[in-house]
Amino acid sequence: MQQRVLVEMATFSSTHCPSYSYSSSIKGGQNQHFAFSSSFLRLSVPAKAKFFLQSQTSSYQSAVLMQDGAVATKVNPVEKETPLKKLKNELLSVTSSEEWDEKACFDINENESTVSITVVGASGDLAKKKIFPALFALYYEDCLPKHFTVYGYARSKMTDAELRNMVSKTLTCRIDKRENCGEKMDQFLKRCFYHSGQYDSEENFAQLDKKLKEHEGGRVSNRLFYLSIPPNIFIDAVKCASLSASSGNGWTRVIVEKPFGRDSESSAALTKALKQYLAEDQIFRIDHYLGKELVENLSVLRFSNLIFEPLWSRQYIRNVQLIFSEDFGTEGRGGYFDHYGIIRDIMQNHLLQILALFAMETPVSLDAEDIRNEKVKVLRSMRPLQLDDVVIGQYKSHTKGGISYPAYTDDNTVPKDSLTPTFAAAALFIDNARWDGVPFLMKAGKALHNKRAEIRVQFRHVPGNLYNRNFGTDLDRATNELVIRVQPDEAIYLKINNKVPGLGMRLDRSNLNLHYAARYSKEIPDAYERLLLDAIEGERRLFIRSDELDAAWALFTPVLKELEEKKIIPEYYPYGSRGPVGAHYLAARYNVRWGDLGVDQ
Amino acid sequence: MQQRVLVEMATFSSTHCPSYSYSSSIKGGQNQHFAFSSSFLRLSVPAKAKFFLQSQTSSYQSAVLMQDGAVATKVNPVEKETPLKKLKNELLSVTSSEEWDEKACFDINENESTVSITVVGASGDLAKKKIFPALFALYYEDCLPKHFTVYGYARSKMTDAELRNMVSKTLTCRIDKRENCGEKMDQFLKRCFYHSGQYDSEENFAQLDKKLKEHEGGRVSNRLFYLSIPPNIFIDAVKCASLSASSGNGWTRVIVEKPFGRDSESSAALTKALKQYLAEDQIFRIDHYLGKELVENLSVLRFSNLIFEPLWSRQYIRNVQLIFSEDFGTEGRGGYFDHYGIIRDIMQNHLLQILALFAMETPVSLDAEDIRNEKVKVLRSMRPLQLDDVVIGQYKSHTKGGISYPAYTDDNTVPKDSLTPTFAAAALFIDNARWDGVPFLMKAGKALHNKRAEIRVQFRHVPGNLYNRNFGTDLDRATNELVIRVQPDEAIYLKINNKVPGLGMRLDRSNLNLHYAARYSKEIPDAYERLLLDAIEGERRLFIRSDELDAAWALFTPVLKELEEKKIIPEYYPYGSRGPVGAHYLAARYNVRWGDLGVDQ
Repeated sequence: MQQRVLVEMATFSSTHCPSYSYSSSIKGGQNQHFAFSSSFLRLSVPAKAKFFLQSQTSSYQSAVLMQDGAVATKVNPVEKETPLKKLKNELLSVTSSEEWDEKACFDINENESTVSITVVGASGDLAKKKIFPALFALYYEDCLPKHFTVYGYARSKMTDAELRNMVSKTLTCRIDKRENCGEKMDQFLKRCFYHSGQYDSEENFAQLDKKLKEHEGGRVSNRLFYLSIPPNIFIDAVKCASLSASSGNGWTRVIVEKPFGRDSESSAALTKALKQYLAEDQIFRIDHYLGKELVENLSVLRFSNLIFEPLWSRQYIRNVQLIFSEDFGTEGRGGYFDHYGIIRDIMQNHLLQILALFAMETPVSLDAEDIRNEKVKVLRSMRPLQLDDVVIGQYKSHTKGGISYPAYTDDNTVPKDSLTPTFAAAALFIDNARWDGVPFLMKAGKALHNKRAEIRVQFRHVPGNLYNRNFGTDLDRATNELVIRVQPDEAIYLKINNKVPGLGMRLDRSNLNLHYAARYSKEIPDAYERLLLDAIEGERRLFIRSDELDAAWALFTPVLKELEEKKIIPEYYPYGSRGPVGAHYLAARYNVRWGDLGVDQ
Repeated sequence: MQQRVLVEMATFSSTHCPSYSYSSSIKGGQNQHFAFSSSFLRLSVPAKAKFFLQSQTSSYQSAVLMQDGAVATKVNPVEKETPLKKLKNELLSVTSSEEWDEKACFDINENESTVSITVVGASGDLAKKKIFPALFALYYEDCLPKHFTVYGYARSKMTDAELRNMVSKTLTCRIDKRENCGEKMDQFLKRCFYHSGQYDSEENFAQLDKKLKEHEGGRVSNRLFYLSIPPNIFIDAVKCASLSASSGNGWTRVIVEKPFGRDSESSAALTKALKQYLAEDQIFRIDHYLGKELVENLSVLRFSNLIFEPLWSRQYIRNVQLIFSEDFGTEGRGGYFDHYGIIRDIMQNHLLQILALFAMETPVSLDAEDIRNEKVKVLRSMRPLQLDDVVIGQYKSHTKGGISYPAYTDDNTVPKDSLTPTFAAAALFIDNARWDGVPFLMKAGKALHNKRAEIRVQFRHVPGNLYNRNFGTDLDRATNELVIRVQPDEAIYLKINNKVPGLGMRLDRSNLNLHYAARYSKEIPDAYERLLLDAIEGERRLFIRSDELDAAWALFTPVLKELEEKKIIPEYYPYGSRGPVGAHYLAARYNVRWGDLGVDQ
């Protein structure tokens, strides 16, 4: 413990990333803050689970002195032997590699190491809209190490200047501190470079490797590849990056985006192929919902507040609803989507991940492996989804206020006879002691009446309630509800029954409300910022482990196959509507009422 | 049950009191409302406990037909026999009087009955500031019956016009509906009259009786006496009112204000004396804190919200704090106060009543007797307060910003050597299964830095909290807290630990907040309005029963005597300060930290 504290202090003094000192940004200033650094959390990950760092092709293991409270220092094996390196070598002879924690490396002596972030698929939408802006935001917040380089990699020919021009168009400055933004942007863009290459060319990646080495200038080389490319070229790119552009003396990590296959088999094949070139802990499967502020907060809410502790089980919770809606359709980009559909695109990953976090038992610690172990247990306790427990929908065209909105199949990139669901509702069950019989309802859809992602927890009604007669015949309509609104306009609110002020005894449902915009003046970081920073720091808590992925697919694969084999016709709903009414009948079967469609949301 | 519903409908159609239809006053309109009439609640009081209505001197029993779902109708025994009266007499012969519910009388056929409200001590401060304005507000809200008369009674000579002039100066219109206010005020004042008389003169009360009869015009006469007079003349006035001015054919009720004695013996003597002239259910001991909106809401919160159900015990609650502060001293009116002191003035009644409501077991129903039975059980389970568990203080003069604030003993009405506490803190314990070992801390004081009344519930810390290290060394500083702010600026908020948005993992304490001013546009009625209306309607839930009073005195009498006998010197604190530091040491002994003095209140 003492050792960790020392390391934390070292971390504090060597970084300026403002995420470590947030308190000045709180509105009002009437609340206590509990200092806690992100690095501190990260350092608490037990070292033993962490040391298999590099691809099989890399030849060095980077390491850091963490013994006996000595201040850890990054050693650079390519430079001449320093006294510290000597010490390290001596210690290595008596200490297993498991006792080293590589993550602390650049935190503690960052000027000795570099990080190169290569965005593979740099000209794509995600790269432009999310990845480069997130990297800039991290840079702006001083969260990137001193020596870093960003490389765009794609097939098209482009100069560094052209890449910078492209990137600069999507960068924005945080609204809460615009000063020096232009200057910071210039400095950031100077660190951005471009390399043109094929995704399956070892030679092209070897050229990239050469360029990266130049930037690294002999320092310890840490390399992060963000694969923002279509799934059919994942493996080729991973192979080439791993064989030709892995770090020689630091870590090499690869962030991969969904889709992680389209069923159990294809997912397993993908994982197997990835593991030919990468170790499990080099694979960072991103699910950007896990990086969202209120999803991160879910565990804090639950595990640091006693008031929720007795409530979090079948004894008090009647049902849990996980709701995702978009107010737009595929809009000409349906080609990819049509191959997957809403269940694979939203439910099997985003909503299921939130469900697992929500429902898991208390983990031993906040370490990545402890949390992921608990999540896997939830997924493995769940019944595979049954066809009866799914309602699918597809949006049809709708004219409103003189504007005509297209049907899904009006999208030119979508086959006219597509049965792909753009909406789905599902009832899932966790067959364990805590959740037996509690319906977990999911609902996800495109082209609905609003844009929203939220978790709704409906509590049971009060047994023997003195105030029953106030609530009419349906007691379930007057129960408490906890709503965690993930997006937009982040908020947490708890619906309670309250006496309406006045001489009579009339009750209403009022909210105990925490509205983020009113409480926190700081802009909430994009999920990608958190996840990129975590990947750079080696924090795997918010990334999906292979066994989690397997368990997730096991739940959805049978019903997905059945839907396709039986060619189940989706229920059509108008663009901009509240979705198919079938979702209500599904909910009704389990005595649930969707919380997002009531008068008092 | 069917019978009650019928009666409720009748009530609904015969009253315009807006307290029965509040929904239009809710801001936002996004919330569900549960219709519930105040009358409905009132009618649910079982009839058998209610029929001993009149003083021993009154000769008639008023009654109402409530059998078999027939619409109840008030009968007027002084008029010639109507078919209804005939029916009643027939029914009476086979039905015990206990099966009649007098309360429904004027609700259901109000034009047959009258209510006369006599404010005894009409020229006093309370009458002017609270009673007359509350009566006007009830009138304004159409909550008074059609036939009502207000009489001021005091020793000074005054004409009706002079009384009206005096009263008119303190009347205000509700801010949310000012229309016709002047007109309404005129109409109200026309119903106000004055009668000059001695408080101990049966003759003077007999004159009043004659005048009241004129106003009643032969209708059923219901009479409410509000004794707003010093305690030494209580009994005389009760005797005279009872003997000379009781209703002949309706109910007679007397509202008495504290002090109800100054210890067990004097209180018992007072009760005994009152009971010479009044039955228990004619005595309405007012504790205006029980009429406050958020005290009324306490039971709603607790008993209609499942989320609080598991939390409400020693298992989850670490301590409960009941806090009252005033930001002014006695200001020349210390004569009465000096005889009682803050413990008798605030703790033994207001704070103890809130404590009892807070801590009681679930009552069988919301009926007055059921609730009061549970409150008595709490009081009787408590240990009498020990001298060690009390800290007393007295304010001394203080100069701040060039302004000099007087000491308590600078008040000309206070003896220079007075040891009367103007501040007290106390630790109380309820030795029952639910609350064993949980400290209930009270704190009350005058001339403090703010004006506030609130209930604070501090929860225990999370066992095995994953986030412990975020909270520093004192886990108790990071626990949940429920705050019910009774006054001013009514609010309910629940302090939770929350993740501060941003890349790090920093926690803070944020509030799940329900701020009444933001939620409800309707002005909150004064406590006196509710209590006066309740007294008129015969609802005793918010009034203190004799056995409750006995139990309350039993808790405080020994320590009060000890303080006086031992001439314990109070701890002096500057006018306008946060009170004596001794309160912190008392709290510390029970591992409590006052919630109202922290940085994040």
